[in-house]
Amino acid sequence: MKKEKNLISLERRLFFEKGTKLAAGSFLFSGLFTSLNAKESVALKVPAWSKSLGTVTAANLYGLPSPFEKDVLKEIRLSGAPKGYVSNSIALTSANSPISKIRGSITPNGLFFERNHSGVPVIDPKEHRLLIHGLVKDNIVLSMEKIKRFPSIEKSYFVECSGNTGISKNSPPDKTLDDMYGLMSSASWIGVKLSVLLEEAGIDLDKAKYIIAEGADGATMARTLPISRAMDDCMVAYMQNGEAIRPEQGYPLKLIVPGCEGNIHIKWLRRLEVTDTPLFARDEVSKYTDLFADGKARQSTLVMDVKSVITFPTTGDRLPEAGFYEIRGLAWSGRGKVKKVDVSVDGGRNWETAKFSTDPLSKAFVEFIYPWIWDGKPAVILSRAVDESKKVQPYFKQISDARGFNSESHNNAIQSWSVNAKGEVHNVRI
Amino acid sequence: MKKEKNLISLERRLFFEKGTKLAAGSFLFSGLFTSLNAKESVALKVPAWSKSLGTVTAANLYGLPSPFEKDVLKEIRLSGAPKGYVSNSIALTSANSPISKIRGSITPNGLFFERNHSGVPVIDPKEHRLLIHGLVKDNIVLSMEKIKRFPSIEKSYFVECSGNTGISKNSPPDKTLDDMYGLMSSASWIGVKLSVLLEEAGIDLDKAKYIIAEGADGATMARTLPISRAMDDCMVAYMQNGEAIRPEQGYPLKLIVPGCEGNIHIKWLRRLEVTDTPLFARDEVSKYTDLFADGKARQSTLVMDVKSVITFPTTGDRLPEAGFYEIRGLAWSGRGKVKKVDVSVDGGRNWETAKFSTDPLSKAFVEFIYPWIWDGKPAVILSRAVDESKKVQPYFKQISDARGFNSESHNNAIQSWSVNAKGEVHNVRI
Repeated sequence: MKKEKNLISLERRLFFEKGTKLAAGSFLFSGLFTSLNAKESVALKVPAWSKSLGTVTAANLYGLPSPFEKDVLKEIRLSGAPKGYVSNSIALTSANSPISKIRGSITPNGLFFERNHSGVPVIDPKEHRLLIHGLVKDNIVLSMEKIKRFPSIEKSYFVECSGNTGISKNSPPDKTLDDMYGLMSSASWIGVKLSVLLEEAGIDLDKAKYIIAEGADGATMARTLPISRAMDDCMVAYMQNGEAIRPEQGYPLKLIVPGCEGNIHIKWLRRLEVTDTPLFARDEVSKYTDLFADGKARQSTLVMDVKSVITFPTTGDRLPEAGFYEIRGLAWSGRGKVKKVDVSVDGGRNWETAKFSTDPLSKAFVEFIYPWIWDGKPAVILSRAVDESKKVQPYFKQISDARGFNSESHNNAIQSWSVNAKGEVHNVRI
Repeated sequence: MKKEKNLISLERRLFFEKGTKLAAGSFLFSGLFTSLNAKESVALKVPAWSKSLGTVTAANLYGLPSPFEKDVLKEIRLSGAPKGYVSNSIALTSANSPISKIRGSITPNGLFFERNHSGVPVIDPKEHRLLIHGLVKDNIVLSMEKIKRFPSIEKSYFVECSGNTGISKNSPPDKTLDDMYGLMSSASWIGVKLSVLLEEAGIDLDKAKYIIAEGADGATMARTLPISRAMDDCMVAYMQNGEAIRPEQGYPLKLIVPGCEGNIHIKWLRRLEVTDTPLFARDEVSKYTDLFADGKARQSTLVMDVKSVITFPTTGDRLPEAGFYEIRGLAWSGRGKVKKVDVSVDGGRNWETAKFSTDPLSKAFVEFIYPWIWDGKPAVILSRAVDESKKVQPYFKQISDARGFNSESHNNAIQSWSVNAKGEVHNVRI
C-alpha cells in the first residue's frame, strides 16, 4: 500500500510545485468523475448487454479487435491521395502505423507499419530456403525447419524507415503525428543470431568485410552491411511478438539489424553472401542516402539516431478542459538505451525529466510519461531524448544548418506541438 | 563479436561436458544444413515469388498472419467434441491458446485464451460506465474517456484459469500440451491502478474489508477480493499488448488481479463495491474452489502457485534425428518473479538450470531454454520452477497426497514428457 501512495503523491507534489491552488477539499482528479448519491448509484442504468447473452465462442478462431475499434488501422498516407485510396503502384506500397491510437513499447502485429518495393510475396515456408555463401568454408542451405533448431534468442527492437518524419523547409504546416511518425514500429523478435549461422558456415574473418543480404520478393531487395555489425547483434528472425512473422514483415524470415534504418532489415530473407566489397545496390546509392547542400551525398548512414516524440496530445486532439493530463510519447535510439527524456511545456525554456512506463531496452521503443496540469492557457509542448552514448536529440535548425534542405532522410529533430486556449493542438516548428 | 562466441561456446561446452565425441572437424550444428559447391549455390532455384509482384497494400488495413499459418488458432477442447465443433452452450464458451505453436513471454492478442460465462458482450465504449460505491466518501461514475485521463501504468501479467492443467487420477494418458495448458496467457496491460480510483472515491480504509467487482456481461460475473490485494498491485486495464483490450478479454475494461486465478480478473468491468463482507457469489463458493478428500472445500485460493511446463518437445512432436535441440518452456508464479527453472532429461535424477530468454518479471510468463544434445536413446524430460518466495513446483503425487483426487483446480504439478528411440514424444506421469 506504499507504492500507490507514492504515485498519488508524485502527481500531487507536481500539482503543488506548479503553484496552482486546490479548492478546499477538492482532489487532483476531481472533474474526471461524476458523484452520485446512494439512490442514484443503485438505480444506475443496466445496459442491454448485461441482460442478454453475448456471442458464442467459435471452434477455431483467430481473435480480432472490437468492432468499435474499426478506425484503428494502418493507413496509406500520401499527399493528395483521396480517402480510401488503394495503391496499385509498386513504389507506393507503404502504410503507416496509427501511432496516435496505440500505446506502449510494442506495436501490435496488425498495426506494424509496412514499406514494400514489389508488394508482399506469399511464401510457402516449406519451400523457403536461406543460402549462405561467398567467403565461407561451406556454402550452406537451410530450411525453415532447420533454422528453428538453432539456438534462439528473443529481443525487442524498433524498426524505423529512414524517411520517417521527413520534414523539410516547406513541409505542410499541420501534418499529424501519424502522417509524420507512422513509418516506425517496435516488436519482440525471436530468431537466430546471424553470427551463429555465419560461424557455422565457416566465415573467413580475415577476408570478409561485408555481408550482402537479399530478399525473396520480386524486387530481390538487397543491401550491404559491414561485417562488424553482422557479427555483433544482428539476427535472423522468424517470430514477431510471439507468433510467426507477419507477411508484410518478411514471413517466413527477416534480417534484423538492430538500430539501423528499416530498409536494411531485409524481409523474406533468402541469401547472405559474405564478400570483401559492397554491393552498391540501387537502394544504397541512389536511395536511402543523405544529399547535402553542396551536392554531395552521404551513403550508408544506417544508424537511426536518438529520437523522441510526444504522441499525446498532438495535432487533432482537443483538451476538453483545464486540469490533469498525461503527456505521453515514445523514445528510441539506434545507439543503445534511451537514458532520459525531458519534456517542456513552455516552448523549451524549462525542462523536466519524464518517467518511463517500462525499463528502457537497447534499440527499442520506450514510452515516457509526463504528468501535466494544464492551466487552460496557450502552451507549446516538446520532448528531447538523450541516449546512453550521450547523443542528444537536436532541434530541426541544428540539422538543417549542418545538412541543408535537400534530404528528408534520417531526421531525428525535436517535434513541438502547440496547445491553444481552446485546448486545440497543432503542429508547430520552433 | 564477443557475445556470440560465448553463445557458441555455451552450447559447445555443454556438448563436451556430456561426454559425446565430435567427429573430427564436425560442428555442433552440422546436420542442420546442406553444403553446396559454388556452382550449386549460384544455380539455387529462384522461386516463383521472387519473379513476380506480391500483393499490394490496402488503404485501410488491420494485418493478419500468413495464410500458411492458418492452423495456428484458438481451439475449443472438450473430450468428445467433434472437429470443427461450435459451442452454443453458455457454460462451454471457452477456447484454449495454442501454446505449442507460439513463443516467448507475451501471448499474441489473437491467440489469448478465453473463458466466458454468458458469451462475449459487444459493448459500446461510449456508453460504458464504471461505478465505484459502498464504503467510500463519494459514489462515483467514470466514463472510459475519463478513466484514460488518470495516471496510467504498464505491466506484464499472466492470466491462468484455476482449472488449467486439471489433471486427475484418471486423466486420459496422452493429452497434449494445448489440451492441458491452453487456459493461460500473458499480456502487457495498460490501465489505472485500482488503488488510485479507490482513493479518489475516498475509500474508508477503517471499515473496508472487501471489494466486489462485477462485469457487464449477461452473467454479471462477480467476485470478491480482499482489500489488501485491491490496494496493492491490482489495475483497471483498457489496453492489451499496445491496442484496446480484446472483446473476449473484457473490452473496454478489465480488472487485473496480478498472480490470481483467471476468474477474478473481472471482464467488462462495470461496478466496484467497497464492503465489509464478501459477496459469497456462486462462482466463489460452488465453483473455483478446491474439494478435499474429507469433503471440505477450500474457498478463495486465488493465488496461482509457481509452475512451469516444457512446451517443446511435447506430445505429438517427433525429433527427426539425434542431435542438438532446444528444450523450451514457460514458467510463472502468482507470488512474484520466477527465480530459476531446472530441467531434467533423465526422469528427474539429474537437474540443470535452464536460461531465460528475457528477464523474468513479477507474475508474468518467462520463457526458459535448455540446450540439449539428444543421443537418440529414450529420455524423460521435465522442468521444475522455483519462485522468489522460495516456493518449489511439486510433483503431482505431492499434491494428490495433500488434497486427494476430488479437485482438478489449482494444479501446479511438474509435467513430464517421454521421448522414445524413434523420437516420438508422449505425456507421462512420474
